[in-house]
Amino acid sequence: MNTLGQILTLTTFGESHGPAIGGVLDGFPSGITVDMEYVRECMQRRRPGQSTVTTGRQEQDEVEFLSGLLDGVTTGAPIAFIIRNTDQHSSDYDELKDIFRPSHADYAWLQRYGIRDWRGGGRSSARVTAPICAAGALSTMALRKMIPALEITAFTSQIGPYSTNPANDMDYSAAMAEKNAVRCPDSCLAAKMEEYIHEMRSQQDSTGGCVTCIVRGLPAGIGNPVFDKLEASLAKAMLGINAAKGFEYGDGFASASQRGSEHNDAFCIEKGRITTATNHSGGIQGGISNGSPIRFRVAFKPTPTIGQEQHTVTIDGKETTMEAKGRHDPCVVPRAVPIVESLTALVILDQYLTSK
Amino acid sequence: MNTLGQILTLTTFGESHGPAIGGVLDGFPSGITVDMEYVRECMQRRRPGQSTVTTGRQEQDEVEFLSGLLDGVTTGAPIAFIIRNTDQHSSDYDELKDIFRPSHADYAWLQRYGIRDWRGGGRSSARVTAPICAAGALSTMALRKMIPALEITAFTSQIGPYSTNPANDMDYSAAMAEKNAVRCPDSCLAAKMEEYIHEMRSQQDSTGGCVTCIVRGLPAGIGNPVFDKLEASLAKAMLGINAAKGFEYGDGFASASQRGSEHNDAFCIEKGRITTATNHSGGIQGGISNGSPIRFRVAFKPTPTIGQEQHTVTIDGKETTMEAKGRHDPCVVPRAVPIVESLTALVILDQYLTSK
Amino acid sequence: MNTLGQILTLTTFGESHGPAIGGVLDGFPSGITVDMEYVRECMQRRRPGQSTVTTGRQEQDEVEFLSGLLDGVTTGAPIAFIIRNTDQHSSDYDELKDIFRPSHADYAWLQRYGIRDWRGGGRSSARVTAPICAAGALSTMALRKMIPALEITAFTSQIGPYSTNPANDMDYSAAMAEKNAVRCPDSCLAAKMEEYIHEMRSQQDSTGGCVTCIVRGLPAGIGNPVFDKLEASLAKAMLGINAAKGFEYGDGFASASQRGSEHNDAFCIEKGRITTATNHSGGIQGGISNGSPIRFRVAFKPTPTIGQEQHTVTIDGKETTMEAKGRHDPCVVPRAVPIVESLTALVILDQYLTSK
Amino acid sequence: MNTLGQILTLTTFGESHGPAIGGVLDGFPSGITVDMEYVRECMQRRRPGQSTVTTGRQEQDEVEFLSGLLDGVTTGAPIAFIIRNTDQHSSDYDELKDIFRPSHADYAWLQRYGIRDWRGGGRSSARVTAPICAAGALSTMALRKMIPALEITAFTSQIGPYSTNPANDMDYSAAMAEKNAVRCPDSCLAAKMEEYIHEMRSQQDSTGGCVTCIVRGLPAGIGNPVFDKLEASLAKAMLGINAAKGFEYGDGFASASQRGSEHNDAFCIEKGRITTATNHSGGIQGGISNGSPIRFRVAFKPTPTIGQEQHTVTIDGKETTMEAKGRHDPCVVPRAVPIVESLTALVILDQYLTSK
Repeated sequence: MNTLGQILTLTTFGESHGPAIGGVLDGFPSGITVDMEYVRECMQRRRPGQSTVTTGRQEQDEVEFLSGLLDGVTTGAPIAFIIRNTDQHSSDYDELKDIFRPSHADYAWLQRYGIRDWRGGGRSSARVTAPICAAGALSTMALRKMIPALEITAFTSQIGPYSTNPANDMDYSAAMAEKNAVRCPDSCLAAKMEEYIHEMRSQQDSTGGCVTCIVRGLPAGIGNPVFDKLEASLAKAMLGINAAKGFEYGDGFASASQRGSEHNDAFCIEKGRITTATNHSGGIQGGISNGSPIRFRVAFKPTPTIGQEQHTVTIDGKETTMEAKGRHDPCVVPRAVPIVESLTALVILDQYLTSK
Repeated sequence: MNTLGQILTLTTFGESHGPAIGGVLDGFPSGITVDMEYVRECMQRRRPGQSTVTTGRQEQDEVEFLSGLLDGVTTGAPIAFIIRNTDQHSSDYDELKDIFRPSHADYAWLQRYGIRDWRGGGRSSARVTAPICAAGALSTMALRKMIPALEITAFTSQIGPYSTNPANDMDYSAAMAEKNAVRCPDSCLAAKMEEYIHEMRSQQDSTGGCVTCIVRGLPAGIGNPVFDKLEASLAKAMLGINAAKGFEYGDGFASASQRGSEHNDAFCIEKGRITTATNHSGGIQGGISNGSPIRFRVAFKPTPTIGQEQHTVTIDGKETTMEAKGRHDPCVVPRAVPIVESLTALVILDQYLTSK
Repeated sequence: MNTLGQILTLTTFGESHGPAIGGVLDGFPSGITVDMEYVRECMQRRRPGQSTVTTGRQEQDEVEFLSGLLDGVTTGAPIAFIIRNTDQHSSDYDELKDIFRPSHADYAWLQRYGIRDWRGGGRSSARVTAPICAAGALSTMALRKMIPALEITAFTSQIGPYSTNPANDMDYSAAMAEKNAVRCPDSCLAAKMEEYIHEMRSQQDSTGGCVTCIVRGLPAGIGNPVFDKLEASLAKAMLGINAAKGFEYGDGFASASQRGSEHNDAFCIEKGRITTATNHSGGIQGGISNGSPIRFRVAFKPTPTIGQEQHTVTIDGKETTMEAKGRHDPCVVPRAVPIVESLTALVILDQYLTSK
Repeated sequence: MNTLGQILTLTTFGESHGPAIGGVLDGFPSGITVDMEYVRECMQRRRPGQSTVTTGRQEQDEVEFLSGLLDGVTTGAPIAFIIRNTDQHSSDYDELKDIFRPSHADYAWLQRYGIRDWRGGGRSSARVTAPICAAGALSTMALRKMIPALEITAFTSQIGPYSTNPANDMDYSAAMAEKNAVRCPDSCLAAKMEEYIHEMRSQQDSTGGCVTCIVRGLPAGIGNPVFDKLEASLAKAMLGINAAKGFEYGDGFASASQRGSEHNDAFCIEKGRITTATNHSGGIQGGISNGSPIRFRVAFKPTPTIGQEQHTVTIDGKETTMEAKGRHDPCVVPRAVPIVESLTALVILDQYLTSK
């Protein structure tokens, strides 16, 4: 249930206010040297509290590896790692013990399990995505060795009313995205997005947005034709991120209003090898990569935790109102960027291992 | 690989031009009486050649059950079924043997497996979705017994430039959708869509579109919090349909431009039970159903097979042009409606069985 | 549930008296040429009615392949195949409808599923092993291409009081075993076994026995260290055969009375490569092959269907007596030989694919 | 790969000389109160260094739970736990870095992964069974709530030349087995076994043995008919224990020399309910429990680590001799008893959850 992947599997565990969160990465190739500094950087990118646009909550996210490594090299044994929960103010959540927060998983979870960890969302907290970043860092290192040309770049493509033009998607680099706090590679737009997030914060409100991801350098022939399609595996992984509401690849929902004659990607020969003249398909046909860049987009809803007064009910079934105390993250999208990259690395490595 | 589901699994097999296609449904509850007439109806709905808007190809799609039934009642043993391929004109495809059709899986498949079944798309043909409808019919019968209030309704919500208004989604019934060939519950719009499809056909072109699906009557508490989320499982299943390019649930991509204060669904008490005042969430929170209707939408690209001349390359790497002969289906969307319903029934039954 | 394997999976279906039995082999390598004559031979070996020591029941076991092949070559798509049930005398079983046959699965199945296919054991019939042989034949063909030196040889090593000496295990060849009806490579012993089986038949009784299997030519490094160990996978597969009661590999149960100094296999150098001086381990250490021959043994109980009068109860809970009518198979062991070989081929190929 | 189970899954990780070993138990029922004292006891039973018959190595085996619990009650979230490795003398193993220990997994592992953790066997160490005991303790607590009558009792039934009489299996209780260091319920035999182990130690040698397990109180109808049979799942789990060489249930290998008329278990009525007059079947028929006690036996080889001089080769392929330094465990069988019980609890709970 808490496991993603077929051959390379990531099992995550942990709640926001338990002793630790973590994961077990199984089926990982042996002989990969782990660059701990790179892992730390990847964790750091997801971490709240790094910039003015994110939550003030401080999560140190120090990863401890427990197994699967010998002198920093993977051995083929399962790689377990944990991240201690340190900045937990469980008592902050005491008042939430008897209430269902609107658009949070509280009510659904209680109906499912008959018991609920009310402390900061428990297993449904965004904090549970931290282990994904550690696993993504490792997967990226394996991919770099196996497919040196591979490059996975995700960036913020929409915040509230501001979006990049999909026509420019292929012009953006990871470096451009990392230049600003919202992780939007268009610096002009980035400034507006940042301002909009500050506005939401000042209004005790929040905003949604989108992350776009481009995978360059994946050879043709990676994926599977039915059910475990490359795009279906990506969709499942992305919809697994907290607050994700949609997934599209290639021209996505825009394809619905296109004609075949405009959507079809003609094959052609470029520098002696087969490629496509356009890439409306987003690099995947029939579940399998076709050698063109993979391109997909993930939509995120606005953070449900807002400071404004909201109508809700208590666990006893009484109507009431609530307002979230403290300082909240008005937009999760910039922090979702490294999670999207991490899950992409995991899915690609898994599909690569099954396609060999 | 060719298997969907956790406890209830559907494994499909077959190519468009092999002897037969079919599936094995395992983990299916025992004691369910199978209404063969209903199975036939479900198969009939997906079948091409039923109306003026679909392909002229005749597929009889007669399902033969091979196991798992005793006097028409399920026994708990795996239910295998096959559908013979009868209307195969493999020779029609002889000219495609040495060519990669644009935006088809031909090239990607050959790179993946080193061998390709060129006859009508082989395993990548839309024909492989037929077993899904048989399995969906069975799952629907099990759900009717287990959750009598459950109702799954899918309909065409977009064809090319014509779309329904999402605000009306909840007003549409299955009966309204089945009244016309395009399966759009808005009869006015349906007429325009039908005309548009005919126009595409006369231009040797094709069009994309969208299917919307509503699940009413699912109790709260069905689903899983991480990775195997209800929405992630639906996304994976839907992206598994041929030509699917996107998935969104609740307000989906529109959430990206919303504020928390407008997106959040306030809990309230209605007739003594907890419900939500609005349903921007689409009935799922944190991977688990919350008792409100599930609502999602799937985007489909235009059929890649078109009669117009297209640029492409041969398997020897030479550039060439091609045009698909014969009569093609200019829009798969109406036929995708029963597939979306079937996969939804499969996913819901599987998640229900894991959540008990 | 009805699936074996990790990467290469075999899902079987079918009951002895339904329309057909069969299987789906998924994850099978592409590019393997299928020798249909070899498949037929493998099926023929398992089939009852071939000799004087087996049941008189005639099963033609004609395999029809439905998918995954193009001009007799595997394409990487799932390979489905069916075997029609022809010689069904369901009415023979009418009298068993209301009775639980001793040491059959009738009672347990009814408790599990609340419904029971009483016709010839239904899903619990030995007939369900036929698809295993078809899948085994295919796996053997793939292994021959991938590991040309590999050789899997199973033979009858015990029937009732007569057993071969394990010390001679390595001297026996498949050809020696196939020379007689009981499939025992020691012709002297084979004659006694055959006579014993005839004696059991004349007494309306049955006998148990053992099958030994030797895998030569498997390179070191195939398998997995924890849970999915090569020996654990073999054990699971073998205990999946009807009537199997035990599994041991290497010195097996005899190891329990050995000392480390006699059981340990010293490493040595032979013709420039590392090998072991003895093979008490049976070719596997810590879940992974060590390059020495794999050696294991499977115990089978006597066929529960016997002609003698037996005490039992009706489904209404009344004590009664019964005696099985007709001609029964007094010993399943010779027919289990090809099943053991087939499952071994499946497990080895699966573990080989995971270990690459 | 490192995961056991279908619905309830245990993934273990860790090497003997890494920072920690542990596990993740997923799919565990919510609402089970965890008795930490009981977990500690279960861990303690497996731990070496408790008595004169085991190794002198001190493993504290303090379990830390990281997730899935709220105030000591399971929440339905994955339960992760770790056990720090404290008594590691990695340097003790320095001399083993360049040598393959006879009948250890060293050589096979290196061939599999191209890298080997030479420190105390790494992932192939017996230490990796510790997490199984923690998971077993939790599973036992869930079973006690779900099937109050259930009782799982394992005991040492053979050490070298000394074995209990299977005819007495049903007379032994857990209390009787726990009275002595070898965990044999026959105190007379226990004394001889203990003496024999001491003799092996003084000779720098080791001995094999057997563990028998009895499961009382499991209702009929738990299990699955094909491949995932109850007995096949038990076999796989047991063969997953380090040094296990064989598995048999019911009359096991003895069935091979029996006749149907003596092996068959007649059904009869006892106190108004259906049961069997004898239990040669070992409580399972066709993969499903029949309501009689489950009875099986596991064979273990002698510990491969012995003090005597042994012939072996270096990783450079040179022949050499070695002798294990320090104090070794001449018999793992008494410590395997709680591991057998734990795995039985895991398998039974998993099969129970799939059979509901």
